[in-house]
Amino acid sequence: MTDPAPCQRWAVKIEYDGNGLVGWQSQASGLSVQGLLEQAAARLAGGRPVSSITAGRTDAGVHALAQVAHLDFPVDSFFTAHSMREGLGFHLKPHAVVVLDAAPVSLDWSARFSATWRSYRYRILNRRARPALAAGHVWHVRSPLDIARMQDAAAHLIGLHDFTSFRAVACQARSPMRTLDVLDITRQDDEVLITAKARSFLHHQVRNMVGTLKQVGTGQWEPDRVAAALAACNRSAAGPTAPPEGLYLSGVGYDPDPFCKTEPTANIQG
Amino acid sequence: MTDPAPCQRWAVKIEYDGNGLVGWQSQASGLSVQGLLEQAAARLAGGRPVSSITAGRTDAGVHALAQVAHLDFPVDSFFTAHSMREGLGFHLKPHAVVVLDAAPVSLDWSARFSATWRSYRYRILNRRARPALAAGHVWHVRSPLDIARMQDAAAHLIGLHDFTSFRAVACQARSPMRTLDVLDITRQDDEVLITAKARSFLHHQVRNMVGTLKQVGTGQWEPDRVAAALAACNRSAAGPTAPPEGLYLSGVGYDPDPFCKTEPTANIQG
Repeated sequence: MTDPAPCQRWAVKIEYDGNGLVGWQSQASGLSVQGLLEQAAARLAGGRPVSSITAGRTDAGVHALAQVAHLDFPVDSFFTAHSMREGLGFHLKPHAVVVLDAAPVSLDWSARFSATWRSYRYRILNRRARPALAAGHVWHVRSPLDIARMQDAAAHLIGLHDFTSFRAVACQARSPMRTLDVLDITRQDDEVLITAKARSFLHHQVRNMVGTLKQVGTGQWEPDRVAAALAACNRSAAGPTAPPEGLYLSGVGYDPDPFCKTEPTANIQG
Repeated sequence: MTDPAPCQRWAVKIEYDGNGLVGWQSQASGLSVQGLLEQAAARLAGGRPVSSITAGRTDAGVHALAQVAHLDFPVDSFFTAHSMREGLGFHLKPHAVVVLDAAPVSLDWSARFSATWRSYRYRILNRRARPALAAGHVWHVRSPLDIARMQDAAAHLIGLHDFTSFRAVACQARSPMRTLDVLDITRQDDEVLITAKARSFLHHQVRNMVGTLKQVGTGQWEPDRVAAALAACNRSAAGPTAPPEGLYLSGVGYDPDPFCKTEPTANIQG
């Protein structure tokens, strides 16, 4: 954003597996989604640097089904949505980061600030046996979870609240006030699936809510204790932080959706 | 089965990730499900050999959600369902093979011959972008699949037929006659899911049916060509073999189900 050079901005929708990644943000060492994406973009831009801004800076080990970022390319580069998608996809190989869609956007559009909602999904594998097929993609909880109790507890968190008790101590957001629109809990066989949706979330908010709901689901906490934890406005009043491997950034909303403007799906031979 | 020593037989239900495994059957080199399971069982039996028979000998790269096998332990070993499950699970670490359930069975019960049905699931990721999260767990098909056409084609395969056109040339079954009870095709977002159920299947039958249905889904074949391929009783008349990574052995049925006799779910602290 500090670069005064003219540029063309592209929105990209990406999927990634958080295992083996240090998270969204570039770090001194380790592979980051941002680093891999900017490196692939720089190759498309003939070696010139391309900067990115994301809708949600996921932590190490957290996955994304449909993360959104924008990339600022030199103004003299020429791409179609198809060549951007395929070109970035090519240069991202063999890493577990793929481009689902790409769309040109105006310079006043921001993947971060134009977003009207974010949604997350959290997967808990709730059975005795450790995961074989879903290893690294679920939180393994052996104690049976009572989802009716968890739903009762979740109801206390819906709406506009001071979420201080559920934000990381290191959270840099100016205000702890957030409006939580959705916090659904369902069971599918061995899996308990938690879905959260809000305009934006505080750092670790979803994982702290999930870690707290798990205390209720196992019977260690009564559902009402979650209301008390929220009212305390103190991180230590809520439950522990659930591990990253069960968390998925599942969607980011924009109005209008920039990805609705791209050309119709091409029939590319597999 | 050639061992005349008295033994106690246990049925086990297992989940595994086929990636990195040479398949069910023990091979000269590489990790097999059978090898890992028999090795874990031998440790429980104080180092004495334990042999196993499975309901379905899956190929290299094929996964299982609920495979069933039986294990013959020395008659003087003592286990509860709980100690068998946890003990085998412990000795299977860190491999991607886990024990979901265990139950004692009589010596005339066979994981293979007592099975009344087997079900398989095949996952196709049908989108342009390669899989990030499901890599190694789906067949990636970029061409759009028309599932209505695939359903029309699948209808020709339901029922009692000579499945010679859909069996591996190396298949050792005495008869090519099989009754296919279910061959369902559904779409969930980017995924096309194919479910097959029968008393038993020929070698590669599911993968050969899936590879053929894909030809129909992409428009390369008319649905009726599948009826002609079946009638030809010639492997070369049907489509190619779909890759192993999309295939899951999803269930094996017994009447009665030996796993219904085990003790109620214990609340084991996670």
